[in-house]
Amino acid sequence: MKKKIAVGIDIGGTNSAFGLVDQEGNMYGESVMSTRNYPDPDQFVEEMYIGIQTLLKALDFAYELVGVGIGAPNANHFRGTIENAANIVWRGVVPIVEKFRRFFPNMPVIITNDAKAAAVGEMVFGGARGMKDFIVITLGTGLGSGFVVGGQIVYGHDSFAGELGHVIVNRTGRVCGCGRKGCLETYVSATGIKRTVFKLIADHTDDSEFRRISYNELTAEMITKAALNGDPIAIEAYEYTGMLLGQALADAVAITSPEAIFLFGGLAKAGKYLFEPTKKYMEMHMLTAFRNKVKLLPSGIAGKNAAILGASALIWQAHNA
Amino acid sequence: MKKKIAVGIDIGGTNSAFGLVDQEGNMYGESVMSTRNYPDPDQFVEEMYIGIQTLLKALDFAYELVGVGIGAPNANHFRGTIENAANIVWRGVVPIVEKFRRFFPNMPVIITNDAKAAAVGEMVFGGARGMKDFIVITLGTGLGSGFVVGGQIVYGHDSFAGELGHVIVNRTGRVCGCGRKGCLETYVSATGIKRTVFKLIADHTDDSEFRRISYNELTAEMITKAALNGDPIAIEAYEYTGMLLGQALADAVAITSPEAIFLFGGLAKAGKYLFEPTKKYMEMHMLTAFRNKVKLLPSGIAGKNAAILGASALIWQAHNA
Repeated sequence: MKKKIAVGIDIGGTNSAFGLVDQEGNMYGESVMSTRNYPDPDQFVEEMYIGIQTLLKALDFAYELVGVGIGAPNANHFRGTIENAANIVWRGVVPIVEKFRRFFPNMPVIITNDAKAAAVGEMVFGGARGMKDFIVITLGTGLGSGFVVGGQIVYGHDSFAGELGHVIVNRTGRVCGCGRKGCLETYVSATGIKRTVFKLIADHTDDSEFRRISYNELTAEMITKAALNGDPIAIEAYEYTGMLLGQALADAVAITSPEAIFLFGGLAKAGKYLFEPTKKYMEMHMLTAFRNKVKLLPSGIAGKNAAILGASALIWQAHNA
Repeated sequence: MKKKIAVGIDIGGTNSAFGLVDQEGNMYGESVMSTRNYPDPDQFVEEMYIGIQTLLKALDFAYELVGVGIGAPNANHFRGTIENAANIVWRGVVPIVEKFRRFFPNMPVIITNDAKAAAVGEMVFGGARGMKDFIVITLGTGLGSGFVVGGQIVYGHDSFAGELGHVIVNRTGRVCGCGRKGCLETYVSATGIKRTVFKLIADHTDDSEFRRISYNELTAEMITKAALNGDPIAIEAYEYTGMLLGQALADAVAITSPEAIFLFGGLAKAGKYLFEPTKKYMEMHMLTAFRNKVKLLPSGIAGKNAAILGASALIWQAHNA
């Protein structure tokens, strides 16, 4: 019997990763290619097709290709497009699913945005197996979210639901890339915690290694490392990040009443420095009916292949349905 | 051919209304009974059964009873219970569906909370016919909400999703009945706008008819009437209410991306005094991707029978599925 294999593709602004994944979430070969060097999306798709064929030829068993799942920023699940993605070289509305279908004509090609792919990955391969109502928060450069309600991803009317990163937490707060002020992701994200460190340096006099580093040099990983080493500014920055995330999650819980919330991505690697304040403030600000009922968990598919696994999970979810 | 009829029941703290509704939303008889006078829920159900039989006997056509739909505060849709409802005389967890099933054994008996029943009513009989993603906001003593995603009511893990009234809009704000501070419903509800009028009287010197009225005498209807008559405090109170509602809706849109939001209940009768500021501030605070796309509409089933229609719609939705 042939082994069923799905392709998972994670399209990013700089690079795009892709790999072959079976129904249990095992990876059979993966690769990466530049996105930025392909201003023509047709050339990008053709090059990736060649890369996928190369991975498939290297398989040492008989396989059946069952579909192509794609995670990408600004993806419109319903239309199969990437729409006005600020961080990708392609302008306007790109019918990326149609382009992939030319190369993979007899199987499903499904696209969704990065955070929703992470949520599907969590449901199919991760800690949300068996759950019907949960939220995945992706903490990267920005804050993405995938809401699952009754076993279904919340797409909303136009496929762009799940923008928890753009809920306002302070109407006179930090300027956001979206043109507004005080969005959650200006505080809770890799960029947000850098901004918080600089705010704390301005407000306090504690010594900190960050006083010797420029904003552009600073990374969220450095803040995590410093917190683990006991740096007071770093620990305070995580406390503040967790407070704002916990408060926002308490509000989100009031709307969709999930069984669990998963934190995914770079900042989640700070472990207790992020999880403890987040949990504390989430419970403190929660409506009584929900208090101490919602699990706050690290992603069950964390790791370098998580985005590819999540994209392939779009196919396995459809396949298993 | 027998005409199909569903029972719709709206259980309230003081009184409970019930009626017979056909598939098109026509009412064939309705009645009301006391809730408060029946501390024993078994007696309440028996009395209501007698009332329903009386309505059925009065029908002058052959009918088939297809189910009983119930809207009630603190209803748990999954368990068929009313749980710790502060405003109802019954204490603890009442298995109300099981009690009704004894009298209506061979048909579905379905319960949900008031706001979710309003949302189902909107979907089956009202302005949301044909929509798959929308929100209904019920503006009564408090603020209730029913979120519909992909054609399904958002119940969440425990059936208690949809508490938009308890999203925090000001963490140092007004004391809420839930024990916290600054919940949306302390500003946006019949009670909330009364509080706003008293705040405005304290802050300003404008003459207003409300300077001659006590808090306990004041009603939301009086504020609506005064706004229609040009009272500056009343108009300002609606402006403030609409601002906070609009801002909260902009955040809610970022999460579920609805096609439309329906305002239902007493305050919505203020018409432009509520809708104009709500729309203005909603658009002003909306993420660009959603701006000028989400319709803000009055309920399409407004009227004194709306709660009965909504409850009966639970049956018609299941019947038509």
